[in-house]
Amino acid sequence: MVAVQAATLSARRQTSSARVETTLAALFDARPAPAPRLEAAMRHGLLVGGKRLRPLLVYLAGQALGADDDALDAPAAAVELVHAYSLIHDDLPAMDDDDLRRGQPTVHKAFDEATAILAGDALQALAFEVIAGTGHPRLGALIKTLAAGAGRDGMVAGQALDMAAVGQPIDVAALATMHAHKTGALIEAAVRLGGLTAVAGDDPRLDALAHYARAIGLAFQVHDDVLDVTGDSTTLGKAAGADAARDKPTYPGLLGLDGARNKAQELIDDAVAALAPLGERAQPLADLAHYIIERDH
Amino acid sequence: MVAVQAATLSARRQTSSARVETTLAALFDARPAPAPRLEAAMRHGLLVGGKRLRPLLVYLAGQALGADDDALDAPAAAVELVHAYSLIHDDLPAMDDDDLRRGQPTVHKAFDEATAILAGDALQALAFEVIAGTGHPRLGALIKTLAAGAGRDGMVAGQALDMAAVGQPIDVAALATMHAHKTGALIEAAVRLGGLTAVAGDDPRLDALAHYARAIGLAFQVHDDVLDVTGDSTTLGKAAGADAARDKPTYPGLLGLDGARNKAQELIDDAVAALAPLGERAQPLADLAHYIIERDH
Repeated sequence: MVAVQAATLSARRQTSSARVETTLAALFDARPAPAPRLEAAMRHGLLVGGKRLRPLLVYLAGQALGADDDALDAPAAAVELVHAYSLIHDDLPAMDDDDLRRGQPTVHKAFDEATAILAGDALQALAFEVIAGTGHPRLGALIKTLAAGAGRDGMVAGQALDMAAVGQPIDVAALATMHAHKTGALIEAAVRLGGLTAVAGDDPRLDALAHYARAIGLAFQVHDDVLDVTGDSTTLGKAAGADAARDKPTYPGLLGLDGARNKAQELIDDAVAALAPLGERAQPLADLAHYIIERDH
Repeated sequence: MVAVQAATLSARRQTSSARVETTLAALFDARPAPAPRLEAAMRHGLLVGGKRLRPLLVYLAGQALGADDDALDAPAAAVELVHAYSLIHDDLPAMDDDDLRRGQPTVHKAFDEATAILAGDALQALAFEVIAGTGHPRLGALIKTLAAGAGRDGMVAGQALDMAAVGQPIDVAALATMHAHKTGALIEAAVRLGGLTAVAGDDPRLDALAHYARAIGLAFQVHDDVLDVTGDSTTLGKAAGADAARDKPTYPGLLGLDGARNKAQELIDDAVAALAPLGERAQPLADLAHYIIERDH
């Protein structure tokens, strides 16, 4: 147990990434697929790297409550499948209309728009199939958590709110609400999936994890906005100053740069404080919270 | 039990329709929705009527193996949620590009394309959430069944194959494969969901139901193709002869009109024969099979 606790955040990130890559790749190995081009598009959307933050949260939250990594592989992969599907759809011409993601052509550019729509659809179904295959005693709660976080009260609602806000004035409360749904809900679901893998739904430590998740979810977005103002394009891997050019509502825009930095710090302090009931095993989660507002990309 | 068996197919269709409408409507009643326009679009795509064939199959298959209607409400609603989401996406400009469905504007026309994409996404998540809420002992198998039927090995694969076939010559085997995925997989999932609600996954009667489902699924498409040639626009509710005008591969086109009719009849005979192990309680399923190739719209 000491050895596990001694594993630094950095080591846990590497393990988490490796495990989720393995799980995801196995879903596409040597399969007699009925629609090969659809599969290729799904792979493209899924395997074009990323921070794999959400799977990491599944592992860290689960580990903090005593789950084995083996039991966390499926929910970790499932949240990444949902995240990947959402990016494919978000990039579509009718949505954010992006040709590139992480320097690679988006799925609708690499394939075609219909294939991209379908690839996203299939990835979402696959996420639920992956969890269903675990036979976990709390399968209903796990599925419900992912579905609610991904759906009309979560991620999809957030994207709808984001689309609706284009060109509209928006105050900081509405901005927070949009982010809470668009990215916060799936982050909260990831943390809860990890926790539920380990403990029952009425365990009060799940509430602590939820509080943590909501705080870091928003802090992540606030810090992204700060980076867009302060970062350089090479480090960011994309053009800095893009938000201002797009006239997008942002935390620095609404609170000033210092106001935004302070907001991010407050959120992280709140997130770390929320972890108290989990004791020492939550240290990697606390370290991740600090990393979220210290990163430069 | 005699009274239940005596309930004609027509009565069971009415009950099934009423129950699924109630279940679906309840999902949208008086909800504090974060994204109201998204909700409205979901309702539009879901509540613009339809034959509700897939829910009916859930009920009939479940009833044939002894399940109570109460236990079948959630899976019945879930398959209709998946079906509804697929229609919204299929109608999109990048896909089949349809402005009307059943005489009503499609979701992207009534709202906008982004909202339609998101409404479909949210309906799919909701389908899994609905089943997850049941606490059914075989929840894993139920979710896996729906996810597999809906996804990259089922419905979505079929739509991908259909899109890929546009403007290409296609033989009858490839046409059958496309239909088996595009519509057959979800029909098979519906039947299996009903069956699994009642009995365990290793019950051999589930195989009989699967055989039945595959046969009626294809027969449904073959008969649709026949109706497009022989039906009149008023009865069909849409322009007859549309397939020929679109140069779409069809059963009458490939087998001739009589060849197509014979094919449909053979499939229905096969479907009914497959039901033998289920005994008398499967009579409504047999009646439905006959209806599928006798209907005029």
